[in-house]
Parts: sequence; structure tokens; C-alpha cells
Amino acid sequence: MTPDYFMNLAYQEALKAFDEGEAPIGAVIAKDGKLIGKGYNRIEKPADPTAHAEIIAIGSAASFLQSWRLDGCTLYVTLEPCLMCLGAIMQSRITAVEYAAKDPRLGAVDTFYYQQEIQRSYKRFPLVSSGLMQEQCSQLLTSFFKQLRKKN
Amino acid sequence: MTPDYFMNLAYQEALKAFDEGEAPIGAVIAKDGKLIGKGYNRIEKPADPTAHAEIIAIGSAASFLQSWRLDGCTLYVTLEPCLMCLGAIMQSRITAVEYAAKDPRLGAVDTFYYQQEIQRSYKRFPLVSSGLMQEQCSQLLTSFFKQLRKKN
Repeated sequence: MTPDYFMNLAYQEALKAFDEGEAPIGAVIAKDGKLIGKGYNRIEKPADPTAHAEIIAIGSAASFLQSWRLDGCTLYVTLEPCLMCLGAIMQSRITAVEYAAKDPRLGAVDTFYYQQEIQRSYKRFPLVSSGLMQEQCSQLLTSFFKQLRKKN
Repeated sequence: MTPDYFMNLAYQEALKAFDEGEAPIGAVIAKDGKLIGKGYNRIEKPADPTAHAEIIAIGSAASFLQSWRLDGCTLYVTLEPCLMCLGAIMQSRITAVEYAAKDPRLGAVDTFYYQQEIQRSYKRFPLVSSGLMQEQCSQLLTSFFKQLRKKN
């Protein structure tokens, strides 16, 4: 399966978040070309600030593999991961991250200082690529926040 | 209730991790002098790399308050939080962090570059203090890893 295939699955997860009134961000995890974990942002309903799409996808992949070590796995996510999710990527030893839209405010994966400091402490950093389905994923977020402003 | 009281509760959580064969780290969250969340490290058994003491304590406090916003809360934890947990502290807006033992390898809370970068993106940083019950909490970790090396 191609990266496009997995990013589209991540987008499908983001749509579920949208339908539940959560900021539409979705993530999936693949290993050896197979889907092994998925999740979408749901911090509002269960009232859990840690329930980002990536954290849920990582938990689900680890549960599937029955191991917290996700070496060799790729995380596909519709928005650039924040600091917490980057930390979870490091803790789980995920090998590669592919994100769609850049988060200019809280995105941590493409931040030079984080990368530098993480290299210093963990002695590694995942492979990062971006841009797949960028427009579609950004647009979904934009329409969500537009709707939200109308309601408030 | 005093900080010593809450750090002792965090230590009691760490002892539970020790008993379950997990690296003994515990955390509690207090608001207005009352305990509202707790957790201990359990990444091995449920195979979840995100199940650090702090993440579980934050989830439990948010569930208790029925809100993901933990403004005004203090996190007490037996070891300096890692990058993932620092990220969760930022996401949840926890006001203050008190940790016992320093983590010279993966501790992120007292790292200058992380602080600087986080100030830039989040425009804030929690109050941090450390050292309470430091020796007791370090010793518990040391004896756990000594035991682990004997087994392997």
C-alpha cells in the first residue's frame, strides 16, 4: 500500500472527529505495508487533553503488536504533531512520520530546536516528510473552525 | 495539604508500579489543596508507550473535572517529566510542576532549549520546582533497575 493510501485513511479518521464536533485530526500507523493502529482527536467529549489522534493511534498500534516498541512503524497524520505527540513518537521509537498540513503555531516535528535537543538526548530522530493531501486536510480544519466561530 | 503530602502520594503511586514490575514512577494532581488525579507508569503490561504516570494522572484529573483544561492544577511527580509528558502538561495547561528526582538523560522540564521554544509557541511555561523526596524517589528507581539487571 502507498503513502497516499494511508494518508487517506488518516483523513477518514479526521472526518470522524469532525462528525463528533472535535477538531478534525486523524492518524494511522502502518508496519510492513499494513495498517496496525488508528485514532482521531477526541479531547472534548471524554475531557482528556492527551487524547490527540497520534496518542490514540500509538496506543492502538502498541496494543495490536503487544509491545510498546514501534520500531519500523510509520505514523501518518493529517496535521503536524505537537510537542506531546512528538514526545510519544520518541518514546514509542516510531521510525517515520508523514504529516499532511503544517501547524505553524504548535507543530513540533519540523522545529529546529526540538530536533536538535531530541538528537542530543535520544540520539535519534524519526524520518519526517510532509505535504501529502495537505490542502484537503487543511481545508477540513478551516471549515471546522469556521463552523465553531459561527456557533459561538 | 502541603507539597510533602502530595509528593508522598506520588511516591505511593510509584510503589504500585514497582510491585507490578514497571519502572517505579508515580504522579498525582492537586487543585485547591485537593487530590484530583493520580497514576503510575505502566507501559509494559498493557503495552502502551504513552502510559507514563503523568499522562494517566492528567487523564484522570481531566475526567474528574470533566474538562481538559487543568489551569490552576499542580502536578507532583517522582521523576522529572520527559518530552511527551511536558507536552501533555502544556496541552492541559497545568500551572505548576513539582518533581522529585532529576532525569539527566530524558528529563525535559528543566532543559533550557525546550523552555525557550515552548515559550515561543505556547507563550507560557509552568512554574517548576524540584527536590522534594528526591533521595527516596531516586533510590526506588535504582533498586528497580538493579533487580531488573539481576533477572536478565
